[in-house]
Amino acid sequence: MTIAELTLIPIGGESSSCSQYVAGALDVLVDFPDLSYRLNPMGTVLEGSMDDILAAIKAMRETVFDKGVPRVYMVIKIDERRDKDNTMDEKLASVAAKRKNDH
Amino acid sequence: MTIAELTLIPIGGESSSCSQYVAGALDVLVDFPDLSYRLNPMGTVLEGSMDDILAAIKAMRETVFDKGVPRVYMVIKIDERRDKDNTMDEKLASVAAKRKNDH
Amino acid sequence: MTIAELTLIPIGGESSSCSQYVAGALDVLVDFPDLSYRLNPMGTVLEGSMDDILAAIKAMRETVFDKGVPRVYMVIKIDERRDKDNTMDEKLASVAAKRKNDH
Amino acid sequence: MTIAELTLIPIGGESSSCSQYVAGALDVLVDFPDLSYRLNPMGTVLEGSMDDILAAIKAMRETVFDKGVPRVYMVIKIDERRDKDNTMDEKLASVAAKRKNDH
Repeated sequence: MTIAELTLIPIGGESSSCSQYVAGALDVLVDFPDLSYRLNPMGTVLEGSMDDILAAIKAMRETVFDKGVPRVYMVIKIDERRDKDNTMDEKLASVAAKRKNDH
Repeated sequence: MTIAELTLIPIGGESSSCSQYVAGALDVLVDFPDLSYRLNPMGTVLEGSMDDILAAIKAMRETVFDKGVPRVYMVIKIDERRDKDNTMDEKLASVAAKRKNDH
Repeated sequence: MTIAELTLIPIGGESSSCSQYVAGALDVLVDFPDLSYRLNPMGTVLEGSMDDILAAIKAMRETVFDKGVPRVYMVIKIDERRDKDNTMDEKLASVAAKRKNDH
Repeated sequence: MTIAELTLIPIGGESSSCSQYVAGALDVLVDFPDLSYRLNPMGTVLEGSMDDILAAIKAMRETVFDKGVPRVYMVIKIDERRDKDNTMDEKLASVAAKRKNDH
């Protein structure tokens, strides 16, 4: 199980808004039923196999080019463990369990 | 309003687990009441002024050193707009409004 | 032509040093003759096709696992243009041409 | 000694070219004589104290806003060690010393 986060940044798009491009990229994830994903204000976290994640990232960025954007900048973080399986929920739960305040 | 995401990676820590360090870093945010934050499986999104965000990031990474970790690698993404105020909720809502499927 | 930068971060390795892992990852690039690369103090810039870059990144991170590291964190930036071909040298030259001081 | 890498991405600029913005940002480093920096095709590596680096990053991104860009996305990687002083040259040399091929 690999967990990654993708941020897609259109350069040379029509305006300073990115939401239409992010929405279009998320819509293509319907073609990757084995992946789970969660959108946050700074990116989309993907959970699944490395190959599915990389294939989804390629498809997601293609949707931005399809909308006529000439340049796409991607920031990808990938967290991969071979000592234990690590899901999104387990990562969050293990942090929550170690908090000392609930600020 | 600036929105940032911080990922803190301890190098040379006791094990391959990072959750204790992330938890300790989040606990220090109680000292930054003007910042909002949301944890996700790949980082912590912070919302507030640039100076508060940078001050919080410095304090968060210090908690990792305080636990005896010799090296800390940080990945920071910062999204700053001067054409409109942009909150975490507004970013998410504007994407949701443009989705074509709810996969 | 796509340009990317990879940073490989071992988590749970023997020490806080990463150089042995970076060196081993660079050595595997001999298997990707169509890629150009340049090491800098914060990552390795790769130039070539998207598929070659992603295949090289997978092979590079595998060398870190092969050395017994249980967890590998990767930070990948990818800059892709469809309006013009963009090599590493062209990117640097176009910045240099627009500098106003040579500090 | 802290080493960081900054990538500045203008969103909503006039075109898909970023070089004018990168050049302008580098020009402001003349105001930070205690910092060393090296440009690479995917970012600018900065070496110095954490506070000087963060101050320089703030000044660099302000030059992009000064050129009328409404939104600036920054990707910052920071590598900080407390077990030894780590310069850009030392990082590169320690990798070079461990290479097995000179591909």
